[in-house]
Amino acid sequence: MTTTSARQTVFEELVIATKILLHEGILDTFGHISARDPEDPNAFFLAQKLAPSHITTGDIQRFNLEGETEDNRPSYLERYIHSEIYKARPDVNCVLHSHSPAVLPYCFTDQPLKPVTHMGAFMGEAVPVYEIRDKHGDATDLFGGGHDVCADIAEALGDQTVVLMARHGVVNVGNSVREVVFRAFYTEQEAKALTAGLSVGNVKYLSPGEVKTAGKLVGAQIDRGWDHWTMTLRQAGLLK
Amino acid sequence: MTTTSARQTVFEELVIATKILLHEGILDTFGHISARDPEDPNAFFLAQKLAPSHITTGDIQRFNLEGETEDNRPSYLERYIHSEIYKARPDVNCVLHSHSPAVLPYCFTDQPLKPVTHMGAFMGEAVPVYEIRDKHGDATDLFGGGHDVCADIAEALGDQTVVLMARHGVVNVGNSVREVVFRAFYTEQEAKALTAGLSVGNVKYLSPGEVKTAGKLVGAQIDRGWDHWTMTLRQAGLLK
Amino acid sequence: MTTTSARQTVFEELVIATKILLHEGILDTFGHISARDPEDPNAFFLAQKLAPSHITTGDIQRFNLEGETEDNRPSYLERYIHSEIYKARPDVNCVLHSHSPAVLPYCFTDQPLKPVTHMGAFMGEAVPVYEIRDKHGDATDLFGGGHDVCADIAEALGDQTVVLMARHGVVNVGNSVREVVFRAFYTEQEAKALTAGLSVGNVKYLSPGEVKTAGKLVGAQIDRGWDHWTMTLRQAGLLK
Amino acid sequence: MTTTSARQTVFEELVIATKILLHEGILDTFGHISARDPEDPNAFFLAQKLAPSHITTGDIQRFNLEGETEDNRPSYLERYIHSEIYKARPDVNCVLHSHSPAVLPYCFTDQPLKPVTHMGAFMGEAVPVYEIRDKHGDATDLFGGGHDVCADIAEALGDQTVVLMARHGVVNVGNSVREVVFRAFYTEQEAKALTAGLSVGNVKYLSPGEVKTAGKLVGAQIDRGWDHWTMTLRQAGLLK
Repeated sequence: MTTTSARQTVFEELVIATKILLHEGILDTFGHISARDPEDPNAFFLAQKLAPSHITTGDIQRFNLEGETEDNRPSYLERYIHSEIYKARPDVNCVLHSHSPAVLPYCFTDQPLKPVTHMGAFMGEAVPVYEIRDKHGDATDLFGGGHDVCADIAEALGDQTVVLMARHGVVNVGNSVREVVFRAFYTEQEAKALTAGLSVGNVKYLSPGEVKTAGKLVGAQIDRGWDHWTMTLRQAGLLK
Repeated sequence: MTTTSARQTVFEELVIATKILLHEGILDTFGHISARDPEDPNAFFLAQKLAPSHITTGDIQRFNLEGETEDNRPSYLERYIHSEIYKARPDVNCVLHSHSPAVLPYCFTDQPLKPVTHMGAFMGEAVPVYEIRDKHGDATDLFGGGHDVCADIAEALGDQTVVLMARHGVVNVGNSVREVVFRAFYTEQEAKALTAGLSVGNVKYLSPGEVKTAGKLVGAQIDRGWDHWTMTLRQAGLLK
Repeated sequence: MTTTSARQTVFEELVIATKILLHEGILDTFGHISARDPEDPNAFFLAQKLAPSHITTGDIQRFNLEGETEDNRPSYLERYIHSEIYKARPDVNCVLHSHSPAVLPYCFTDQPLKPVTHMGAFMGEAVPVYEIRDKHGDATDLFGGGHDVCADIAEALGDQTVVLMARHGVVNVGNSVREVVFRAFYTEQEAKALTAGLSVGNVKYLSPGEVKTAGKLVGAQIDRGWDHWTMTLRQAGLLK
Repeated sequence: MTTTSARQTVFEELVIATKILLHEGILDTFGHISARDPEDPNAFFLAQKLAPSHITTGDIQRFNLEGETEDNRPSYLERYIHSEIYKARPDVNCVLHSHSPAVLPYCFTDQPLKPVTHMGAFMGEAVPVYEIRDKHGDATDLFGGGHDVCADIAEALGDQTVVLMARHGVVNVGNSVREVVFRAFYTEQEAKALTAGLSVGNVKYLSPGEVKTAGKLVGAQIDRGWDHWTMTLRQAGLLK
């Protein structure tokens, strides 16, 4: 593999994205973000199996869309979540799996996660939930460790931007690393606001028309988010 | 434009206010604070379109009350929220738009935000909510991007100090930058306390008389807040 | 006034206590902690009117039990909360007034604050609430600014360790500065736990016997708390 | 006692574990973590009576399974919680007692703490609660200060990994210091998620089969957690 300038940018953005997501409380000891190879749509980049806080550009591995790599270092068991989504969704260039804390309640209750402010319009009218019990019964490890389960996660995602894995966590997708960081941050914020809102009164969700119109508007502001979070990292001494 | 000493003070206070509001969690990647030109009531100052954490005194633009500027750098799309309020409210010298997180639930539920301690008396008996659907239907971008919507926001604000924008965010106004920072902080605190209070028992809100009497008292303590928050910034290495 | 070594210790403990209470989120821009003069039970020490983050040993003023001082610098308007409690409670050597955030919901709802773990046993079976409306009607400033209101606060406190001021805040008292810091921290913790507990199930409060027995035990551990919080300040670079 | 290399590793891990648990908000001024002597199953190591933030390897004391030590420095009164569990559970090599804040509501309500994501599978189908009132009435100090109470806590724990002490706190056990840190962190996270989940909808807990299968999977990732939290400590300047 030649490390072109476009690939180098992706490696650096994956490392910075991991730092941002850690610092903003979306990732902790688990979770991982990947990006499609800008030189080859049939491959993607993902760090080797490490705690997110340890990842550097030297840890990035290259996978094909079956989740196979020639890198001999250990790989995340959940890499098929990434590979199956890249296979099913040619428009997706970045995938994040996390246990985003404020989103978790929507992974194990019957309350759907729906947008309550314009910032969450990208989530669509409601976030789908992948229920592993439907096909695999109630004695699984709840994990996205195999091709079949992960193909089903990709199917549950459909053409949306977020899918929840029942009693496990969250998957965000987008067109770029920056977009996915933005969406992950605001998925968490929307979930936090909705949880508070449900405890104070009757919730008025975004209408289908608002979801559509506001989604376009907010999507244009992604670099502003990236500028802000990288500044925050620098102020905390976590980025040069 | 001559940079008089009064204007220079306003520029510096806008930058410090932005840092305080970021550090206290009122702003994140979005939101902006403006101030009326102390030399000309028909103009106001607002930073160019940037993530709040990037703003310096060099980024301040000057607008007339139609939201027009001669500065060629990009401007916030939501500047009309500011211009229409300065037009409607000659007593207002500072306007803040934010997505203050604890206040958001009151932007998308039927629960009114009302003061529960003396610190929130400035909010009046209840905070008005601007519902964009009333005039513009339910397929808008929920945004304050045009003169007409923003004139309606100013109308919904009336003679109060805070107005909520349905499914979007918050606008605080006041007589000075320091007063608006103080009010933004305590709007957030009151909302946080009310959300917890609603989950533990029956709430006894401030009475109309208490709103009136306590509001005067607390309003005299604004510099103490400013002194505190700037000290906090210095301790965090974010202000010299 | 001679600055004896006992007085100097009190001055330093008041400053450190203020830093701890700020750092642990009990104080913000408001609130103040005082201590009885170790050389004269008819006097007490309290900082001049400043944001808590600005206070040094040079800011301490001396008051008699009418809340009068010979110090010409501005004094807190709420000093009578302190003076009236020292007058009514000879056993009390330290008084703290705060807007302790997790406790606020119990200042404006009908839900009593009662201990739920052994750490809160010092609060007694239930924390009394001073309701200013009972004597003064519903158009006051909700403030403890006069002798009469503050004498009533002291009366509402009775022989307990905490009293809430309706729609305003909290008063903690104790035998020493260290004890009051300890109690303020655990009043906040107990309130936080109770708020969460009320939302998940039926609460089993401490019994009268547990309040009595556990209170004695925990009270012996106060210096451990002080050692911990001062270490935390030093690690944050806020104390030498 | 000879300080073998295995013992030295345990001492260092106990100190680092204490720092991690403080930094992650599981411990505050109270709580303690111990480890069985790797050279002698009839002994264990626990720091002398200190605020957790003060503990160094020089503070570790050695106890037999009756909770007796030859070290003359003060010992924690609650050491019998540790000794009785080591006696009853030969498989346990580490015991932690804490007042883990998000777990407290499950110590004083009738709502059982049950796992809601795969990360909490180690907790079993439901976390047992030790109710001191059952044998000792309702006028105790709620404390684990004696052999008999602590033997009952060990009995309530049974063959599980967590036990709650009614109106007091939490005990986590495991095979190693690293495993207990991991479990303590995720006990807190699961409790936080469950509290939010109970307020938003009907909760779907892990099934018995998921508890069993997911528990095995997650248990293999313990070093990743340790790597992450020690990195976090280093970034905060709290570990070299």
